[in-house]
Amino acid sequence: MPDLENSRFLRACRQLPVDATPVWFMRQAGRSLPEYKALKGTTNILDAIAEPELAAEITLQPVRRYGVDAAILYSDIVVPVQSVGFGVEIAAGVGPVIERPFTSADDLDRLPEFDPAEHTPYVLETVRLLAKELAGSTPLIGFAGAPFTVASYLLEGRPSRDYVQTRKLLWSDPGLFHELLDRLAQYCIASLRGQVAAGASAIQVFDSWAGALTPEDYAEHVLPSTRKIFSAVADLGVPRIASGVGTSELLGHWADAGADVVSVDSTITLDEARRRTGGRTAVQGNLDPWAVALASWPVVEAKSHAVLASNAGRPGHIFNLGHGVRPETAPATLQRVVDLVHAAPVGSHA
Amino acid sequence: MPDLENSRFLRACRQLPVDATPVWFMRQAGRSLPEYKALKGTTNILDAIAEPELAAEITLQPVRRYGVDAAILYSDIVVPVQSVGFGVEIAAGVGPVIERPFTSADDLDRLPEFDPAEHTPYVLETVRLLAKELAGSTPLIGFAGAPFTVASYLLEGRPSRDYVQTRKLLWSDPGLFHELLDRLAQYCIASLRGQVAAGASAIQVFDSWAGALTPEDYAEHVLPSTRKIFSAVADLGVPRIASGVGTSELLGHWADAGADVVSVDSTITLDEARRRTGGRTAVQGNLDPWAVALASWPVVEAKSHAVLASNAGRPGHIFNLGHGVRPETAPATLQRVVDLVHAAPVGSHA
Repeated sequence: MPDLENSRFLRACRQLPVDATPVWFMRQAGRSLPEYKALKGTTNILDAIAEPELAAEITLQPVRRYGVDAAILYSDIVVPVQSVGFGVEIAAGVGPVIERPFTSADDLDRLPEFDPAEHTPYVLETVRLLAKELAGSTPLIGFAGAPFTVASYLLEGRPSRDYVQTRKLLWSDPGLFHELLDRLAQYCIASLRGQVAAGASAIQVFDSWAGALTPEDYAEHVLPSTRKIFSAVADLGVPRIASGVGTSELLGHWADAGADVVSVDSTITLDEARRRTGGRTAVQGNLDPWAVALASWPVVEAKSHAVLASNAGRPGHIFNLGHGVRPETAPATLQRVVDLVHAAPVGSHA
Repeated sequence: MPDLENSRFLRACRQLPVDATPVWFMRQAGRSLPEYKALKGTTNILDAIAEPELAAEITLQPVRRYGVDAAILYSDIVVPVQSVGFGVEIAAGVGPVIERPFTSADDLDRLPEFDPAEHTPYVLETVRLLAKELAGSTPLIGFAGAPFTVASYLLEGRPSRDYVQTRKLLWSDPGLFHELLDRLAQYCIASLRGQVAAGASAIQVFDSWAGALTPEDYAEHVLPSTRKIFSAVADLGVPRIASGVGTSELLGHWADAGADVVSVDSTITLDEARRRTGGRTAVQGNLDPWAVALASWPVVEAKSHAVLASNAGRPGHIFNLGHGVRPETAPATLQRVVDLVHAAPVGSHA
């Protein structure tokens, strides 16, 4: 698909020149869109993900509405562990809840080898539908949860601020902790390979909560699994994006691990992000999602220009938020951001 | 008091050579100590703070138990606003709760000029008792809440993760936001000056939640009040410490604003912290408080040595945690950390 390969998004991921800065938004599909609420109704998220026609349509909604430069699969990082029967639900207003959390080595038996064709055929079908629908125009980003972040759900049993069980296992039984991460790395790799085989043009690994660890603990206990994942998908030739929040101190580690693109949260400038990766990766970000949700347009406009100015016209910038779209965000504001980014002459801020 | 001036803590704050690295812990007094629970019983925190003999004794407990190199006043950052009648309680298991949150310019009238002698004579009395008790041996750190962090309580009405009201005011009515911060800067300055006049040897400004803002918003909306505070206490000649959590990207701003010492959380090394301040300040930190609470001694020991190694024997290091002592921390572990730090030859890690 030569057209896709020349898309702004994929070219920027590869640090090649573009005609305009590509832009998409983490969580662009879903809860902030009225057409999503209308379409999904009261269907549970995991049930919606399991319906390929519905999941594909939800994925396409923000592409149609905003004209963003990439689609991202409508799915969830807990889907693989849920699909093997670990006992995961997504509770409304809470997030992932685990029926019986991971507490000992015996629980490894509840995580058999993950096969996307066997366990999540509906995900592959959704990707195939989307690849067909989007072919030649907009790249589709496939994604998976990084082992640490998925493990934190399995260990805590629900979303956590403190990660007490996760930290305890990491420090008291690093061998078992690493075994758990290895098991989940296989899930991540198999899921990503399956999505690319079905038609995804790029992959993003969400290590959303990795910033809870000190960089030293991250490097010792988590980085090896990240490195393994990026190595295991290198032969696919698609851009590999690493992302998280509160992870501004980990960007250099992600570059070391083989990321082609790093997501940058709103705590540093893109310029500083490039310093931390030594210019080895493209950068994705990093408009403050709170400003987009709560501030008036002149404030959002100024902050959008500041993000572009911080990139200073260098190749390898994908415009995005520093974190996911807040549910209370007005779609009209996101539209104005897309239009602003597309209208800005590339290099004009150099 | 020549002896105090030669104390390890004050010398390290001034980046002078010391015979051993000074160590104290944020939240060393209070909830992690059995003798605190026994002494305080069911007395409300704000009531305990208002009893000088009790507050002084609580302040001294960790000094006696651990032999730490500094005492920190037992008080709370909401005490000044509570003392003028703004309607603040500290609810058990919750934190500061505001009866009628700050919602408009009219609420500025509820924040009259703060006079520590008139509004919080008990705080000054506690400091005087402590200065007498500690004289010639251990320096006492006085402290106050930075305007942004105190404002976030007044605006949100209770502890928050999202700071929605705070962000809204900052972006929708920066003039009123700055007026509120100015008002609270007067509280901070008057409180700190009162404590130093009563005998405190150093002051720490807690901008605990400043990391919720992007560094750009911090610099534009908050830094001016921080600068004003540090300038307004410069003539006192006591070290000025800036602290927060999630604030590793703000260290350069704090150095610009006049801090003599910056608290470093556990997300960066001391070496990187010094890079960010350009070596202009001493550094305080930065052992992971979660490890101290949850990990076994060999893990804590290795991490303590890593902190010392990161300082590499340079003058101007005050050993501390990256954030406050977790309530579940075993006092015996903190004792071992104190002993390890004191036993480590200064410069041995250079």
